[in-house]
Amino acid sequence: MLIVMKNKATKPQIDNVVKAIEKLKLQAERLPGSQRTTIGVMGNKEYIDQSRILNFPGVKEIIHVTKKYKLVSREYREQDSTVEINKSTIFGGKKPVIIAGPCSIESYEQLLEIAKAIKKLGANMLRGGAYKPRTSPYSFQGLEEEGLKIMSKISKEVGIPTISEITSTDQLDLFKKHTDMIQIGARNMHNFDLLKKVAKLGKPILLKRGMSATMEEFLLAAEYILNEGNPNVVLCERGIRTFEQSTRNTLDLNTVALIKKESHLPIIVDPSHAAGRYDLVAPLAKAGLAVGADGLIVEVHNDPKNALSDGGQSLTFESFESLIKEL
Amino acid sequence: MLIVMKNKATKPQIDNVVKAIEKLKLQAERLPGSQRTTIGVMGNKEYIDQSRILNFPGVKEIIHVTKKYKLVSREYREQDSTVEINKSTIFGGKKPVIIAGPCSIESYEQLLEIAKAIKKLGANMLRGGAYKPRTSPYSFQGLEEEGLKIMSKISKEVGIPTISEITSTDQLDLFKKHTDMIQIGARNMHNFDLLKKVAKLGKPILLKRGMSATMEEFLLAAEYILNEGNPNVVLCERGIRTFEQSTRNTLDLNTVALIKKESHLPIIVDPSHAAGRYDLVAPLAKAGLAVGADGLIVEVHNDPKNALSDGGQSLTFESFESLIKEL
Amino acid sequence: MLIVMKNKATKPQIDNVVKAIEKLKLQAERLPGSQRTTIGVMGNKEYIDQSRILNFPGVKEIIHVTKKYKLVSREYREQDSTVEINKSTIFGGKKPVIIAGPCSIESYEQLLEIAKAIKKLGANMLRGGAYKPRTSPYSFQGLEEEGLKIMSKISKEVGIPTISEITSTDQLDLFKKHTDMIQIGARNMHNFDLLKKVAKLGKPILLKRGMSATMEEFLLAAEYILNEGNPNVVLCERGIRTFEQSTRNTLDLNTVALIKKESHLPIIVDPSHAAGRYDLVAPLAKAGLAVGADGLIVEVHNDPKNALSDGGQSLTFESFESLIKEL
Amino acid sequence: MLIVMKNKATKPQIDNVVKAIEKLKLQAERLPGSQRTTIGVMGNKEYIDQSRILNFPGVKEIIHVTKKYKLVSREYREQDSTVEINKSTIFGGKKPVIIAGPCSIESYEQLLEIAKAIKKLGANMLRGGAYKPRTSPYSFQGLEEEGLKIMSKISKEVGIPTISEITSTDQLDLFKKHTDMIQIGARNMHNFDLLKKVAKLGKPILLKRGMSATMEEFLLAAEYILNEGNPNVVLCERGIRTFEQSTRNTLDLNTVALIKKESHLPIIVDPSHAAGRYDLVAPLAKAGLAVGADGLIVEVHNDPKNALSDGGQSLTFESFESLIKEL
Repeated sequence: MLIVMKNKATKPQIDNVVKAIEKLKLQAERLPGSQRTTIGVMGNKEYIDQSRILNFPGVKEIIHVTKKYKLVSREYREQDSTVEINKSTIFGGKKPVIIAGPCSIESYEQLLEIAKAIKKLGANMLRGGAYKPRTSPYSFQGLEEEGLKIMSKISKEVGIPTISEITSTDQLDLFKKHTDMIQIGARNMHNFDLLKKVAKLGKPILLKRGMSATMEEFLLAAEYILNEGNPNVVLCERGIRTFEQSTRNTLDLNTVALIKKESHLPIIVDPSHAAGRYDLVAPLAKAGLAVGADGLIVEVHNDPKNALSDGGQSLTFESFESLIKEL
Repeated sequence: MLIVMKNKATKPQIDNVVKAIEKLKLQAERLPGSQRTTIGVMGNKEYIDQSRILNFPGVKEIIHVTKKYKLVSREYREQDSTVEINKSTIFGGKKPVIIAGPCSIESYEQLLEIAKAIKKLGANMLRGGAYKPRTSPYSFQGLEEEGLKIMSKISKEVGIPTISEITSTDQLDLFKKHTDMIQIGARNMHNFDLLKKVAKLGKPILLKRGMSATMEEFLLAAEYILNEGNPNVVLCERGIRTFEQSTRNTLDLNTVALIKKESHLPIIVDPSHAAGRYDLVAPLAKAGLAVGADGLIVEVHNDPKNALSDGGQSLTFESFESLIKEL
Repeated sequence: MLIVMKNKATKPQIDNVVKAIEKLKLQAERLPGSQRTTIGVMGNKEYIDQSRILNFPGVKEIIHVTKKYKLVSREYREQDSTVEINKSTIFGGKKPVIIAGPCSIESYEQLLEIAKAIKKLGANMLRGGAYKPRTSPYSFQGLEEEGLKIMSKISKEVGIPTISEITSTDQLDLFKKHTDMIQIGARNMHNFDLLKKVAKLGKPILLKRGMSATMEEFLLAAEYILNEGNPNVVLCERGIRTFEQSTRNTLDLNTVALIKKESHLPIIVDPSHAAGRYDLVAPLAKAGLAVGADGLIVEVHNDPKNALSDGGQSLTFESFESLIKEL
Repeated sequence: MLIVMKNKATKPQIDNVVKAIEKLKLQAERLPGSQRTTIGVMGNKEYIDQSRILNFPGVKEIIHVTKKYKLVSREYREQDSTVEINKSTIFGGKKPVIIAGPCSIESYEQLLEIAKAIKKLGANMLRGGAYKPRTSPYSFQGLEEEGLKIMSKISKEVGIPTISEITSTDQLDLFKKHTDMIQIGARNMHNFDLLKKVAKLGKPILLKRGMSATMEEFLLAAEYILNEGNPNVVLCERGIRTFEQSTRNTLDLNTVALIKKESHLPIIVDPSHAAGRYDLVAPLAKAGLAVGADGLIVEVHNDPKNALSDGGQSLTFESFESLIKEL
């Protein structure tokens, strides 16, 4: 931590800050510059949360050097982590993991048809929403428990592992029983209570980045999970909110590239939610793998024109097939 | 809803879309332009969630006219709503409501000193965090249940109503018992499960805008609460996330001004979180009331230099006193 | 400047960076922490532009302490600057300066009617666009030279000083001759060639903030002008571009409040462009003055329903009158 | 264009708007809905700039259907455009075009060494800045005319076409004489005067997207050039400004994918400016080509540790070589 003093800060003001730092059992080194003094703070093993230093007279600004996250960082663990679902589905392994399926589970027949098709075309996992966090209370909210049961049944019949999104701690038991991996969606990335309780189940977690979460906040949400003793976290970039509204979100591949350097966790890309339009899914999927992502999660529907939600961004079987071939 | 066809869309393509609309028991009116045909959809009483129409051949774009929200809109209810805490504390009433207090409840003594001071200086309500949603798992997480009990005790002793932030549905009973108003924080604005369950308590709710929530999403989060039968919602603008990082967030008074036109709900402003620096709190508070907000929520601390959280943005008693005088 | 080394940086890597700094005749102080070494750089009188240090092995990050701007800063000049147009129109003086007028100059008759009306209602200066920087090449581009001449004539007849926006260095002579103050618009804030050449005219300049300019970039654009020897700069906040699209831009009053601390230059607010809707202009104007702005620039039109540009955000004489009364 | 009336708009108010539309020689179709009336406007061959309709009593909102751009759109020209520099350097042709070189031209020796190296490694064009638009007036501003002459000489000696950035209309003759392609930088994308005058030279132009330009504004800037009769425009996505500050900008590949659908113009990607860090350049370059970009512009320096500008994001010859191999 670096404390920048105003250019007119007096010696007693500087001394006061130094004393406050030393009271915290940290070292304070005065760095007198040609314009102002800055005070370097050393000896801290972790991030110091001391915005209150701002209130000392003569202080202009505080600059942090130490990152707030630790367990998720590559400085903590140098080699790539892997999250294994089964022998052929390993996030962070040699081959990218492809997750596909509908936005919402609509019926046994619908999900069965999709599960068979995507498995045949090469997908590793089946996705499908049972509890849908919808912006409007009047939108279709999902089949809920019924949906999870359908998914669980089909998983066994077709032989494909599954993932679905949890939206409340009331659903913990159901997800523990019915799914192979649990998704925490963008809207709940900052729901720390949910993060901690899902973490304790010990199951693999797919953590989506919040719509306006910085890289640091995203990694800290994962840190909450690792800090509960669950290392099975896969990150997912799904587009951030920017001024550009021609596409639904802006897929932030800069951050994917940077996270591969900053963290050992696997990260995948969701081109469907990033684009919001089916015809941009394939190019963004290719870009995601090119930048180094460890997999993809893609919306595929047997009949997008009649989907109950997000039909506009779903691939048909044909377009999913041609995407898989191009990859 | 308006469906914009590509300029080369064929007649059969246009007919197909019209048929799909009519199947939904809506009217479709062809609007042939000099460059392309658009199709007006009429007869819908609510927002139609039909992104799947995008998948029809020949469709270029879908434009929505109807807003997704209803109960919160001024078209639904013309006159201003009020939310009454007690006779002298009415949000949306004649006088702005001033909420003040520390970021975190730290001890009985601290909160008592602050409660007495702010009441004397003219604040209407006492705020104080018991459960703190912190970005980092390593930051101080609040006194939790103990904090709420302290607050409840002081409320009675000093005679001032209280508000605190809820972060999990596990806390519902405690908040029902110990606080006069319940805050749903920016990070949980999209936690629809929490919104619905807190709504059912029937208590007044302060709903903070998510860091990157659009005005429509903000109003829809309130709609979730009203839709559960609880009309006692006060909105709170607390700064949005933008590219500008000189200040912690950007206080969006444009949206405050627009919400006063679009919705009948009261709205207050939080200059402390918007600025992140104590020395910008007073000018932003004044701007908030000038733009038409129905109140303020301000962080005040007896000893900001030793606060356990957010000390950098807390006012001292002296600066709070001078703010109140200026208002 | 602070150079943060990787936690595994070797001693020779650290020594290399220290040597490179010393070669620049600056001091380098090693700050060994419990996790990593940082290197404090001292002795620089100005901002050091050394992104290349990033390329040294073992370097993780560079953090700047010194700001890039100087002449515009309050550390350079403690008391408020004033920019005087005439005896009763002084930016940064005791009374806020009110600039009003149409988006575009459309005719002699139109501008005369507006000039008379706004002067009577209490405006200090007349605005009007002659060269319009339009997003589309097909939109009305202004009356150009003819417009400036009309404005100059009316200025004398009505007795009101004028301001108009310059868009090219070809127009320097015309603006020197015909206007009292020259506006550099948001789209040209980063047009450094224009900044320097307009600065040399020595006339008062109204510098609008670029749509996505940070506070630092905004102040540096002003620094370009002061660095040419022209201290007569008035800043103007006119809304920044954010994800929120319910209003055209987001008026950033946080930055106005902060600039009053960081800089001695006067700053005014443009509620018309910030809102993009006439019915939000009055509340935002009031908020602008409440936060401490030194004036306003507002679009007023004799007949907004028939304006050639930006009619949607223009006030009528009646609404301008009631705004002035409320202020 | 669609005019949305308030739900309480009266029949005379609706009639008034219809009359105003018909006065413009356009057709107005009333679309009475269950909640409100909307008015469809037809017959316009181009975008109608009628924000003033907002001022009519009873009008709630205006929604545009027609895009403002025309010549650049794929509806205007279905097949891909190409911009040919020479036989083996064709933007929009079969092979991606690779532009490489230093941020700034520093000396004859420096540029010669880089030109030879990048040509040998497979680059098609040499970039190098002579006039540098720097945020701070105190940063290195480039070798100016001297730089362009050096570049021109080396172009002939080494046999490689060149591109450099123009920053003022004063430089038109120099650029006409000394460069093969002219770059208009992000900061000048909205400098319409410069766009029009450079367009008239008839030379190929590389138009960079403004830091916060929407796709529509970006295409309209290109429209300014085509509208002057110059079809030789190559677009360049170089990162947009978002809340995420871990990387300098956010490379917006969504928009690249969408522009390939909306426009016939070639578009390339600048991973160096998007990332601001040399170690993210290679993954972003690969992602750019994977999404369908027609080329890359990359900063390469013989000695990044001693570069006069932007050293932190420059590749060495070795890293450029390995990037080329991976592509």
